[in-house]
Amino acid sequence: MRTLILGGDGYLGWPTALYLSERGHEVAVADNFLRRQYDHELGVESLVPIAPLRTRVDVWRELTGREIGVWVGDLTDGDFVAGMVEAFRPDAIVHYAEQRAAPYSMIDRQHAVHTQVNNVVGNLNVLYAIAEIDPSIHLVKLGTMGEYGTPNIDIEEGWLDVTHKGRTDRLPFPKQPGSMYHLSKVHDSHNIMFACRTWGLRATDLNQGIVYGQATEETMRDPRLATRFDYDGVFGTVLNRFVVQAVLGHPLTVYGTGGQTRGLIDIRDTCECIRLAAENPAEPGEFRVFNQMTESLSVAEMADRVVQTYGKPVEVEHLDPPRTEKPEHYYNVAHTSLLELGLQPHLLSDTLLESLYAITEEHAHRADPSVIRPTVRWDRVRNALPDRWARGVQPRGRHIAD
Amino acid sequence: MRTLILGGDGYLGWPTALYLSERGHEVAVADNFLRRQYDHELGVESLVPIAPLRTRVDVWRELTGREIGVWVGDLTDGDFVAGMVEAFRPDAIVHYAEQRAAPYSMIDRQHAVHTQVNNVVGNLNVLYAIAEIDPSIHLVKLGTMGEYGTPNIDIEEGWLDVTHKGRTDRLPFPKQPGSMYHLSKVHDSHNIMFACRTWGLRATDLNQGIVYGQATEETMRDPRLATRFDYDGVFGTVLNRFVVQAVLGHPLTVYGTGGQTRGLIDIRDTCECIRLAAENPAEPGEFRVFNQMTESLSVAEMADRVVQTYGKPVEVEHLDPPRTEKPEHYYNVAHTSLLELGLQPHLLSDTLLESLYAITEEHAHRADPSVIRPTVRWDRVRNALPDRWARGVQPRGRHIAD
Repeated sequence: MRTLILGGDGYLGWPTALYLSERGHEVAVADNFLRRQYDHELGVESLVPIAPLRTRVDVWRELTGREIGVWVGDLTDGDFVAGMVEAFRPDAIVHYAEQRAAPYSMIDRQHAVHTQVNNVVGNLNVLYAIAEIDPSIHLVKLGTMGEYGTPNIDIEEGWLDVTHKGRTDRLPFPKQPGSMYHLSKVHDSHNIMFACRTWGLRATDLNQGIVYGQATEETMRDPRLATRFDYDGVFGTVLNRFVVQAVLGHPLTVYGTGGQTRGLIDIRDTCECIRLAAENPAEPGEFRVFNQMTESLSVAEMADRVVQTYGKPVEVEHLDPPRTEKPEHYYNVAHTSLLELGLQPHLLSDTLLESLYAITEEHAHRADPSVIRPTVRWDRVRNALPDRWARGVQPRGRHIAD
Repeated sequence: MRTLILGGDGYLGWPTALYLSERGHEVAVADNFLRRQYDHELGVESLVPIAPLRTRVDVWRELTGREIGVWVGDLTDGDFVAGMVEAFRPDAIVHYAEQRAAPYSMIDRQHAVHTQVNNVVGNLNVLYAIAEIDPSIHLVKLGTMGEYGTPNIDIEEGWLDVTHKGRTDRLPFPKQPGSMYHLSKVHDSHNIMFACRTWGLRATDLNQGIVYGQATEETMRDPRLATRFDYDGVFGTVLNRFVVQAVLGHPLTVYGTGGQTRGLIDIRDTCECIRLAAENPAEPGEFRVFNQMTESLSVAEMADRVVQTYGKPVEVEHLDPPRTEKPEHYYNVAHTSLLELGLQPHLLSDTLLESLYAITEEHAHRADPSVIRPTVRWDRVRNALPDRWARGVQPRGRHIAD
């Protein structure tokens, strides 16, 4: 099958491209390199060095003989999207191409507006391209578990059977997203649901947990195939960040008590989930939602796993929580649909963490400890970027320093 | 109190400005005249002639001695919004300033993207201006009953008490909006809810029904104070449109069987609802939702009222429905909050329709019958604008003709 991966130069997009290419998909990737641009803006870098996209694709071809097509352009340019879909004619479009960091979206007004416009308009252009060119193209869209927030009831897979005053209906699960970024994904979900209902599109919305890990079988074949590994306070996800802090001999920075519970997923399972979704498409008109996570842990438990498994002593520091969120909450999530399609999860095991420690130790000399701690607070409407930038260059030409 | 009305040159914004000014509010209005621009794009005009905003304000001052401040600018310009809020320092911001026509948003991709960007970014900029400058400013935001769609359960005022697998929570009412425009309002609601939870803002989201009527006590004092009256297939709302069709001797165009039920409200009640919301603000941190409608009627019932009350014979024509919606559905809406604050509704009465007939007859010579019938179909991803434009000028420089 022909699979187009939007955001194919990113942390997950690139390993997914290799994973599907290896398994016989005709793969093309599209990217505008905005994720690399955010690095420049924030003054940070992937801990593991990453090759340019053209190099990655060349190396993959040399190693495997497999071709990955490349489209360079911006999804907010509707004509670019339509032209690409018309030319490549995919069976499935896997859509990773969104600004994906909650703290980034909460820096200030400009970053919030950028996040919502970039994500919502890009996704709208994808929906219109599918509807205009071939409504049978299956959209596999990356959402986030953070769309749900932390309701005091079980979180179901996208829909909720409601009985109210003696009448019943199956309704979209109510969402209480916790950042301008998470809000943008909720907006996307509503737009996609409408496109399925109105134009008969078929879509799978994957509400993904927090991804951890860096290596997949395919990326390990050559250092130039490596995907990025973020540990900074803006783009680094919690477990990856803890691993880097342990290796650097820094305390693990837990926000508050660490009682916030989150769904997790191994990067290798992400790739397999995408394959399962793409190869088992939704029905025409169906808006299908899968909760793409394999287990739930509290942040304190994640820190504890690192403390228990890293070979040297590790301290834990509890920070004043930068996010506005419930410190403790009920969290019980249905996530059976992908298991029913055949997913065999890699649960968080010592083995995985050992391999992450090894990767981190190899590249520890590249780490900049000054970028790890959180700099963006939810209760501050206008956050300064890290000090290196707040005085001097104004990144994006739009940042207003405090 | 000081009240800033965004979209104060529009169908409802202008009468609201006069209503509040008359009742002692210090009023300023802001507008970018985009609504007048849409008229130029579509080649249509208000049936009742409308004066320029500066004339309106001058006439009001001459008649009453009351001053209405004017800000001309675009809410998608965040610096404009912040500067205005900083300078005027309102107690309440009444936010009407959005693209408000479902058919307009469904013309094609460009119009959908325009609608969502214009509405979502404008509203985000308002939220940020309040949060940065004075979080005690009360946001009174115009939403729509169409945000809810037509669930098979009672529609509550914004929140739903849910019991699921033995646990309970009060959750945002699940939304199933029926157009790119209605979606934009749902996005707004989620963004506002988040701002209240995270920054402690106070907001009232008014899910308004379909407004009918054209005259208020204040606008009737001088023809130059009149507000617009739309009857075209894109911006004209259903009951206003039926009145114009009756007067012109055209059949009333009912979409399908007319079994779709809608909430309605008299334009005079809209003004009073805004006053009640503004003078009785939400608590800090509260996201308050009122369903701003006074009665429910099916479209067939609305047509029947016109047939029964107009002095001459009126025919009804059933058209192939242009919208994708349920032809018949359950519809029972809670709308008690505004009544509890003191609203005394004008229900749809013969008197009101008589006055609408009189207004329409006075201006019937200005009517262009060719613009009344629906031109935008939901099941067509790319609609042509009316023929006068599809060949020749490309309005907005972006429309792609079929």
